[in-house]
Amino acid sequence: MGYTDQDWQSINTIRTLAIDATFAANSGHPGAPMGMAPVAHVLWNRIMNYNPKNPKWLNRDRFVLSNGHGCMLQYALLHLAGFGLTIDDLKNFRHVDSITPGHPESHDTPGIEVTTGPLGQGFANAVGLAIAQEHTAAQFNKPGFELINNHTYVFMGDGCHMEGVASEAASMAGHLQLGNLIAIYDDNNISIDGNTNCAFTEDVNKRMEAYGWHCVTVGDGDHDLDSIEAAIKACQAVKDKPSMIKLRTTIGFGSKLEGTGGVHGAPLKKDDIIQVKEKFGFNPEETFVVPQGVHEQYSKKSAEGAALEQEWNQLLEKYSKEHSAEAADLKRRQTGALPEGWEKNLPVYTPADKAVASRKLSEIVLGKIHDAIPELVGGSADLTGSNLTRWKDAVDFQPPSTGLGDWSGRYIRYGVREHAMGAVMNGLAAYGTILPYGGTFLNFVSYAAGAVRLSALSRERVIWVATHDSIGLGEDGPTHQPIETLAHFRALPNCMVWRPADGNETSAAYYVALTSLHTPTILALSRQDLPQLENSTIASAIKGGYVVHEAEKADITIVSTGSEVGICVDAIKTLKEQHNLTARVVSIPCFEVFDTQSKEYRLSVLPDGIPSLSVEVMSTMGWERYTHEQFGLNRFGASGAYKDVYKKFEFTPEGIAKRAVATVDFWKDVPNIRSPINRAFQQLI
Amino acid sequence: MGYTDQDWQSINTIRTLAIDATFAANSGHPGAPMGMAPVAHVLWNRIMNYNPKNPKWLNRDRFVLSNGHGCMLQYALLHLAGFGLTIDDLKNFRHVDSITPGHPESHDTPGIEVTTGPLGQGFANAVGLAIAQEHTAAQFNKPGFELINNHTYVFMGDGCHMEGVASEAASMAGHLQLGNLIAIYDDNNISIDGNTNCAFTEDVNKRMEAYGWHCVTVGDGDHDLDSIEAAIKACQAVKDKPSMIKLRTTIGFGSKLEGTGGVHGAPLKKDDIIQVKEKFGFNPEETFVVPQGVHEQYSKKSAEGAALEQEWNQLLEKYSKEHSAEAADLKRRQTGALPEGWEKNLPVYTPADKAVASRKLSEIVLGKIHDAIPELVGGSADLTGSNLTRWKDAVDFQPPSTGLGDWSGRYIRYGVREHAMGAVMNGLAAYGTILPYGGTFLNFVSYAAGAVRLSALSRERVIWVATHDSIGLGEDGPTHQPIETLAHFRALPNCMVWRPADGNETSAAYYVALTSLHTPTILALSRQDLPQLENSTIASAIKGGYVVHEAEKADITIVSTGSEVGICVDAIKTLKEQHNLTARVVSIPCFEVFDTQSKEYRLSVLPDGIPSLSVEVMSTMGWERYTHEQFGLNRFGASGAYKDVYKKFEFTPEGIAKRAVATVDFWKDVPNIRSPINRAFQQLI
Repeated sequence: MGYTDQDWQSINTIRTLAIDATFAANSGHPGAPMGMAPVAHVLWNRIMNYNPKNPKWLNRDRFVLSNGHGCMLQYALLHLAGFGLTIDDLKNFRHVDSITPGHPESHDTPGIEVTTGPLGQGFANAVGLAIAQEHTAAQFNKPGFELINNHTYVFMGDGCHMEGVASEAASMAGHLQLGNLIAIYDDNNISIDGNTNCAFTEDVNKRMEAYGWHCVTVGDGDHDLDSIEAAIKACQAVKDKPSMIKLRTTIGFGSKLEGTGGVHGAPLKKDDIIQVKEKFGFNPEETFVVPQGVHEQYSKKSAEGAALEQEWNQLLEKYSKEHSAEAADLKRRQTGALPEGWEKNLPVYTPADKAVASRKLSEIVLGKIHDAIPELVGGSADLTGSNLTRWKDAVDFQPPSTGLGDWSGRYIRYGVREHAMGAVMNGLAAYGTILPYGGTFLNFVSYAAGAVRLSALSRERVIWVATHDSIGLGEDGPTHQPIETLAHFRALPNCMVWRPADGNETSAAYYVALTSLHTPTILALSRQDLPQLENSTIASAIKGGYVVHEAEKADITIVSTGSEVGICVDAIKTLKEQHNLTARVVSIPCFEVFDTQSKEYRLSVLPDGIPSLSVEVMSTMGWERYTHEQFGLNRFGASGAYKDVYKKFEFTPEGIAKRAVATVDFWKDVPNIRSPINRAFQQLI
Repeated sequence: MGYTDQDWQSINTIRTLAIDATFAANSGHPGAPMGMAPVAHVLWNRIMNYNPKNPKWLNRDRFVLSNGHGCMLQYALLHLAGFGLTIDDLKNFRHVDSITPGHPESHDTPGIEVTTGPLGQGFANAVGLAIAQEHTAAQFNKPGFELINNHTYVFMGDGCHMEGVASEAASMAGHLQLGNLIAIYDDNNISIDGNTNCAFTEDVNKRMEAYGWHCVTVGDGDHDLDSIEAAIKACQAVKDKPSMIKLRTTIGFGSKLEGTGGVHGAPLKKDDIIQVKEKFGFNPEETFVVPQGVHEQYSKKSAEGAALEQEWNQLLEKYSKEHSAEAADLKRRQTGALPEGWEKNLPVYTPADKAVASRKLSEIVLGKIHDAIPELVGGSADLTGSNLTRWKDAVDFQPPSTGLGDWSGRYIRYGVREHAMGAVMNGLAAYGTILPYGGTFLNFVSYAAGAVRLSALSRERVIWVATHDSIGLGEDGPTHQPIETLAHFRALPNCMVWRPADGNETSAAYYVALTSLHTPTILALSRQDLPQLENSTIASAIKGGYVVHEAEKADITIVSTGSEVGICVDAIKTLKEQHNLTARVVSIPCFEVFDTQSKEYRLSVLPDGIPSLSVEVMSTMGWERYTHEQFGLNRFGASGAYKDVYKKFEFTPEGIAKRAVATVDFWKDVPNIRSPINRAFQQLI
């Protein structure tokens, strides 16, 4: 309230910065920044709590730009607020190696909470950030110490609303009654194909209300700053529901093309820029101008934010005295380091131990480590009993009014919403106090591919407990049996795919996943029982690949993962007895980690001089990097008891032996067989 | 109306068949079939039009079981109705090589319209089937000839409603006013994690109404057959909206565990089976029993269906006389064959032609062939101007009341709904009269991975126009630049990935995509201009791989795809002038098609004796199958002008030459270099 010309100058500065940057880059989206500048100014100059001097202050309000193509809006705000983005950074918008890339990327740009652009993701991330806030508050706030009470604000457009991942997350957020989440929907009626009336005519508020959201509409987002502020404050007052403000705006406000698709994804033309700058009281000859009054207005706000953090730090100091263990825990969590000695809880197995499905081995790990790692927050996309993701006595994360759990609960019922689960986990991880994992069938991690990709790109520690990892799931059949999935995620940069073969390998997989601060992990786990291998140890498996069975003067190296390693070990005997061939067996539970070992080590595992054969019951793609020949399944699976299915496709000791014989025969005339580990040059990684 | 004990015997027969089959398989989901048997019986015995003697009768009502885990319901119905599923087939439920697999698969089982199980997909397929019906009706119905007026019925559960793909499709269906689509929502309050109150508490009817659906609730789906029938008929009467019946049922009705998660995904226990059979008036000692009265009831219905088809055939015959061209077209479409001579419209290029982006080349193809192939129905997920998927003068598929198009329109505005687009296209293809294509950025085909997988598994001819196919999209940056995407879909069985390098290759890609009746295709297309290659022809490119530049006594074969082929050709000169090396250049626009060529041909392209190097600006995964060394990008890309990005990662003639030199050097001491085309044994494909 009490907005003055100074506010409008600030708003128009945001607009002209977006105009100038997209024009300079000859690329980008001026329309959304111009349309959303008023609400952005109200939020960033009047409402949000943040300290640009410490973008990681824990209790800061979170801001997510889910319509990430409008990132010049966010870059302009970060510049004005003093987050360290300079005018030169804005001039380098969309240039190689700038900190102002074409969409917001959290790992390089201070003040960007999550990486957005792929539509719908940011909104779902915001749901994760809001869950993290509720959970962290429940775990750490004490009487007299409301340490954690931040809000999460998310801007979103029509595109975000159309994406299924946002629908899933909205339904979750409504169920969870996330009162500190406030979405601002830029209702500008324009998407890339033009007016939204061609494809998107639903009643958005009604839909969000059906999910359990509180919705308000502001009719004139172009001018009515008072109503915008009042709406946000009204939403803050609603504590038992997430809120959405449907804000009618004019895309590209001020442009000759305002309100049309013409300003969505292309810079303004020169003559248009001249008229719009004149209209806004800017000199059309100048670019990247920030008037002194604007600087002052934002400096004042930033100083207030710094003071707020200082106050909070004092509160934390007092808290540290009265609740020293909790304070230490909270500080530790923010570093990403795990509690000392946690790894002593990892189970260790010997070959005498019975065969156990790796999904069950995963459950055992979770059961043993959850006390030691309090930041571990798990869940499943409605497959808890199949994924075995819930430890005994876990409390559900639920609104207390449901009677099903409370805010401090560490187990999230994601519902059948794999994509939202992936995106929510990115938000949980980004908050800074939570280490999330989530379960589904490996095949349905593909539903969440968009979110997994962003975990990898934004370097979030997120763990997928992906059970039923192959045709070994049996009767559910080809619709549920992954073939391409491991290749898909192995090809994704900065993503670890683990497929452990037994208990020790499962412990190793968890060890590496939990201690890799900036890399997501997919744990591919079996439904069927797996024997404990002779030579597996956590120490070996941690290297990503190692020799399970060594042999002198071997004729062949058989290389495998997960449930097939045991069958390969069984094939050793078949090969010796029926073909007089000596085989070594290697397990590579994780390509990505094995690739980081020294060449010397990798060559000791996959040596020169003998041919090698990979065995994995899915696409052979990618195995040529490690072995000379590949036995896999480049077709869809089959529905039936798992042993029948394995037999159908010859993944038996005999079937493996047959292909090993063919491999030895095929390579017998080649002198000095070179291990595929040897490469002509380093890849760009 | 007028339901008798005979109806209840039929309903209980469906239930006991599901009980017996899941018990015999020791696997499967009895709960949904037992709960939905009443509505299934009403629909299949009273409402739906079908002729089991001809499961492909064009104007049949379509039935989709989106909660595909309940497939014993569908198999029981197909058995009763006489679709050729025998009692032995039911006894073989979930056995290897049966036609009754763990989830419904359309390619093997008569009467299954679409392959379901992955939740949400079937519902979205049904939206596609309903669009196809409206469109086919608009194109072929004439005054006095309502040839096409079938309904599409879809059963769905809570799980389907939670999935984003279903939300996207529901929003589309509401916008499109698909009056012949009727969804029946099995509101049984149970999902795998137990009561839905733990994760799914939204007001589903209100949400569907917000999308524009007509919703009714039937309170007692366990007993009230009259209300079920009345509700379906009321929905049929609503012509300007899709309808949903929210049907309260008891999962596992009759079991001791009815209404609980205990009957969802596991067979009933023996003692439970005894009591439920006694309750239903069946002999607990007998299994797989179909009483004579049930057979008679369904035989009568089937005979009515056969008569209906006969009537329809007479109508078609009369239509053929008055509208012979349309009738011939309609018949031809159902065979999958394209109109004779259509391929003469494919553009042909010479090296003298200017450089053109392959997305633009694709637009040119569409512009030239759309008249010749009237079944081609395209669209884009809100990227029309970027994907260039809309030919000039295309009419939008829209409800006429919108004023934006009509039902005969061949261009669909999918909105920002990639996953639904994929699943809707599967439905369009399954209807039998439409050849669908849809556009988005290649990176966002990943959002639709679940649907693409089912296109491949169910063998539907669906074409993705996937533009902006690499870091070559430039300024949008890493959030939009595919790295893992080609590897992902190349690893998917029965999916063609084409990445054409110029105009002739683009024409070839379309040729193979359009004429491959049972295989989906992803066309990876560039944003940037590509030169027309010296030796590319449609005839060569159709082979999936060919020699672009041959050379005597070559030192190296450089192998590439798409936008990098031209750069590789430029590298020939660099290699000769700066390193005195002679290079051959090969283009492999499609791995899957190249793999089907004779070994002799493949070896002529990738010969023994010289080393090879692949060049593609994304994950190298999979290239080891074709080349000795790989130059790619196993990291995320960068935001900037595309030439700057290519330069940063050294995808320049110099960068390629550098790696070619390293390759030649590394392999120079190896005698008789073997082409990777040589393999020890055939893969299981």
